[in-house]
Amino acid sequence: MAITLGPNQYGKAEVRLVTVRRDGPVHHLKDLTVSTSLRGELAATHLTGDNAGVLATDTQKNTVYAFAKEAPVGEIEDFGLRLARHFVGSQENITCARIKIDEHGWDRIGVGGEPHDHAFSRSGDERRTTAVTIQGGRAWVVSGIDGLTLLKSTGSEFAGFLSDPYTILQPTHDRVMATSLVAQWRFLTPLAEGPAAWDEVYAGVKAQLVKQFAVVQSLALQQTLYHMGKAVLEEFPQLAEVRLSAPNKHHFVYDLSPFGLENPGEVFHADDRPYGLIQATVTRSDAPDPGPARDLQQGWLA
Amino acid sequence: MAITLGPNQYGKAEVRLVTVRRDGPVHHLKDLTVSTSLRGELAATHLTGDNAGVLATDTQKNTVYAFAKEAPVGEIEDFGLRLARHFVGSQENITCARIKIDEHGWDRIGVGGEPHDHAFSRSGDERRTTAVTIQGGRAWVVSGIDGLTLLKSTGSEFAGFLSDPYTILQPTHDRVMATSLVAQWRFLTPLAEGPAAWDEVYAGVKAQLVKQFAVVQSLALQQTLYHMGKAVLEEFPQLAEVRLSAPNKHHFVYDLSPFGLENPGEVFHADDRPYGLIQATVTRSDAPDPGPARDLQQGWLA
Amino acid sequence: MAITLGPNQYGKAEVRLVTVRRDGPVHHLKDLTVSTSLRGELAATHLTGDNAGVLATDTQKNTVYAFAKEAPVGEIEDFGLRLARHFVGSQENITCARIKIDEHGWDRIGVGGEPHDHAFSRSGDERRTTAVTIQGGRAWVVSGIDGLTLLKSTGSEFAGFLSDPYTILQPTHDRVMATSLVAQWRFLTPLAEGPAAWDEVYAGVKAQLVKQFAVVQSLALQQTLYHMGKAVLEEFPQLAEVRLSAPNKHHFVYDLSPFGLENPGEVFHADDRPYGLIQATVTRSDAPDPGPARDLQQGWLA
Amino acid sequence: MAITLGPNQYGKAEVRLVTVRRDGPVHHLKDLTVSTSLRGELAATHLTGDNAGVLATDTQKNTVYAFAKEAPVGEIEDFGLRLARHFVGSQENITCARIKIDEHGWDRIGVGGEPHDHAFSRSGDERRTTAVTIQGGRAWVVSGIDGLTLLKSTGSEFAGFLSDPYTILQPTHDRVMATSLVAQWRFLTPLAEGPAAWDEVYAGVKAQLVKQFAVVQSLALQQTLYHMGKAVLEEFPQLAEVRLSAPNKHHFVYDLSPFGLENPGEVFHADDRPYGLIQATVTRSDAPDPGPARDLQQGWLA
Repeated sequence: MAITLGPNQYGKAEVRLVTVRRDGPVHHLKDLTVSTSLRGELAATHLTGDNAGVLATDTQKNTVYAFAKEAPVGEIEDFGLRLARHFVGSQENITCARIKIDEHGWDRIGVGGEPHDHAFSRSGDERRTTAVTIQGGRAWVVSGIDGLTLLKSTGSEFAGFLSDPYTILQPTHDRVMATSLVAQWRFLTPLAEGPAAWDEVYAGVKAQLVKQFAVVQSLALQQTLYHMGKAVLEEFPQLAEVRLSAPNKHHFVYDLSPFGLENPGEVFHADDRPYGLIQATVTRSDAPDPGPARDLQQGWLA
Repeated sequence: MAITLGPNQYGKAEVRLVTVRRDGPVHHLKDLTVSTSLRGELAATHLTGDNAGVLATDTQKNTVYAFAKEAPVGEIEDFGLRLARHFVGSQENITCARIKIDEHGWDRIGVGGEPHDHAFSRSGDERRTTAVTIQGGRAWVVSGIDGLTLLKSTGSEFAGFLSDPYTILQPTHDRVMATSLVAQWRFLTPLAEGPAAWDEVYAGVKAQLVKQFAVVQSLALQQTLYHMGKAVLEEFPQLAEVRLSAPNKHHFVYDLSPFGLENPGEVFHADDRPYGLIQATVTRSDAPDPGPARDLQQGWLA
Repeated sequence: MAITLGPNQYGKAEVRLVTVRRDGPVHHLKDLTVSTSLRGELAATHLTGDNAGVLATDTQKNTVYAFAKEAPVGEIEDFGLRLARHFVGSQENITCARIKIDEHGWDRIGVGGEPHDHAFSRSGDERRTTAVTIQGGRAWVVSGIDGLTLLKSTGSEFAGFLSDPYTILQPTHDRVMATSLVAQWRFLTPLAEGPAAWDEVYAGVKAQLVKQFAVVQSLALQQTLYHMGKAVLEEFPQLAEVRLSAPNKHHFVYDLSPFGLENPGEVFHADDRPYGLIQATVTRSDAPDPGPARDLQQGWLA
Repeated sequence: MAITLGPNQYGKAEVRLVTVRRDGPVHHLKDLTVSTSLRGELAATHLTGDNAGVLATDTQKNTVYAFAKEAPVGEIEDFGLRLARHFVGSQENITCARIKIDEHGWDRIGVGGEPHDHAFSRSGDERRTTAVTIQGGRAWVVSGIDGLTLLKSTGSEFAGFLSDPYTILQPTHDRVMATSLVAQWRFLTPLAEGPAAWDEVYAGVKAQLVKQFAVVQSLALQQTLYHMGKAVLEEFPQLAEVRLSAPNKHHFVYDLSPFGLENPGEVFHADDRPYGLIQATVTRSDAPDPGPARDLQQGWLA
């Protein structure tokens, strides 16, 4: 028995990159948070502190900013692929690079009914995300949305569930259902030839998620999630699977009976913790193995 | 010399109230965070623990929920006034009540081009706010907006400033300017007769703030704030003053010259801390004294 | 009637300054968050964007770092006074400067029973604070502690309170009481001659706050706060007043009766929101006016 | 090709459980955040909304509170095992349960040199953690520490690293190194017979992490992490592997040369973002497969 180095990675996390593209007087904004992560033959730095095979995380940061200037950033998936291919391609000992990017949205300010050339307001708290992995000449792309906060004030039930000695919850056929959804969709590998329609897929998936949330008569949050994922896969053949993580943000009917008041689903307390947490994957039966795509930074720890 | 009780107040903070108003199948949502705060003759509880004059904060919370059922919540200013008047009116020893409310926005989800009856998505991170004070039969209302995040990619300068031995900043005539604005507008007291146009004022002030941010050629963030406040007061005669607090969310041009790249205002690092913090009041010269309106919970501590 | 500029201030917020003082091999650490704020004749920059009287916030930041090198930082109150006096003393149009400093604690790591020369671990979440104001040749110092989280599992009652139609809370003579205390103590002005015992006062006040929390049989959180403040003023004649802000972090006895279990104060749910918020001042009857000391950044907005 | 349900789980997240054990007048406090997560045959609820096999997350919450009363909570690993075994053992369709627990520390307040019976102060921001998994009659335990914030003011180097066209970082043989460490240690499976020494392992591992941080002359954060993990495995034969995730919390020497000042490692800017992120596993060469132990909630998403 020996003690050895196991899986390891390193990089620069949360590089806050903002770019302005100037088409004459009309400016275009990109606001990204970029994290890099490299893997490969890195035993020397761990075992002896020999850094000859280490590209400083400061350099990784510089690369993000420089690449944003050397060519247009474009869609976050393409920018991630450029960066990941560069890190793997330029260093012999690096065999795997993962780039994670969050995109923060901005809307063009309207003045006098016209969109302004160079003034913007933040469009909300939700973020478009991607996690790109390059390894062994192959690319995996897992794109997503984070913080999509949704609420329906009816059209949600929860009944017919198990009862054990600790069960006191009453079944209901009309409740508020709210969540702050995280969704991730994995593209089929190998990626299709030609320019990928990352933007169209993002817009289309988001529209499906929102629509299914609204129109499905929910019998369980699990069922809503499955319908979301199924609708997405049916519409987008380029996707292998969809993962959904949904906190059940409880809205409790406030008991007004001590004050002589009825409360037929009108006044709620929005609770913070604890919350239900429902997580589901919807997948194609013939989806290829995710390879390293699901083994990213966030999954590093238990 | 004696040691005595000085200013004091107590209440329930951050009651998370969500209401659903049902107009047949069409539902209307209100999502509020309500904080109550009472002042008056409260020496006994402090000095001896005699609570005979103390309305429990639990009761204050119940009152918020019950009032939301007893009559429609309506606009947050009106709901705050109802609550504040109740607390002062129903307890002899309470002479001042302040209600602070944040309203979180929701947009109706569109499905098939039609707004959905009962499904909503969170509209962003910014919050509509109010702080209502009742004292001595008078009412003060300070309404506002919190977290209005704006960015302009040009049209902002900063030059001609003081130079001292610690000054190395270079003047610029073209920079990114970004902020997450907090604005508060105080209504004239006594409040106008008849239904106040709280909603219209909110929408109009927000539109002015955003417009002035976009159209003013900024020579300093201070100047932008002043123009914002001035435009608001010119449009809304019912307002006494506007307070503005604006972090200068620095976007630094990233130095790409070591890599042989020019960077004419295209690639930026969005920094977290430190940040400039610019705060200004714009007021009518004949504005009445704010009375207790500016001495709220948040101003309690240095 | 005219529209005019009202109260205003500007500065650099949250400068993250860490210093290492090297006494030979033994190092001493200071970890501060410093915010500067200047007031005075600043109409030009607001009204016309003329910045001739504006010291850039970048310069203010540089000054913080340079001053940390030009002389030892020392106690945060002294460092704040040095900075505030510099800003007022070196710029004609600046008549008031406020410096707010939070100090983050570090403990020396022990190795083999000995304190290590240069390795430290963060000592907790609480922060020592000060807010120093210089105006008209006078100095005000309000020091404090933030985030002092305390809990007692008995020795706390709440009974004999008002009952109104919205009251359902039951009186109790044994409850958990927990808070995350913010305390601020204002020094008498003019400050005493000679070196002020800022450190001793800090340690002594903190010890009193903690002790009173533990030993007072609490009949109300208000009463506990008053006893805290009174004990502090009795011990420290150099203080004019103490302000205390205490969230009542509710710990609710969990109802286990549906499961056939008694719960005599053993199992609790620690709730997030809402929370009671109790705020009180204890003062000397002859305390001088606080002047600008209580009108700091945090109190700017309603 | 078909669209099918893939991996899924559900539970109650962040149950805030506080218990008071009363040994006569002396009270003992436990402050835990508990999250439950169940897996198994859950297709029906996803596909059709048939909840007959679903134990409500509300019930899972009740179980946490009830179990805290039915027997002493004890060490968090044992409490997690009790809960996980219950969920798997009492429901036919549940084949895997994971319980994640964070423990928040409290110190007994000292009054007059004596530890107080029932008054406590929060001991800091770091948390003791565990993630327990029961599946197929086996148990996996991954315990850890979160938020262990450490800084050394010398004894850290970074030199000899790769240089590419984007490298401008200068090698250094004396820098500040700071991190907020997350460490997780996986116990060998099957777990040893008899009472496990969870507490002793926790205390011993934490001591080793802190000691190695202090005494290793660091040539790279990677090397420090490896030494930490190796020392832990050498001391604790019951552990299979250690995972370490360490943000490199950069402290940049502030450039004071424009002000005519030297700065030989005395005045630093503590930066927020971006930060290096170094992650490493140290493992026994014969460590058994982690099975489901590493596939927990936090690793769910890319």
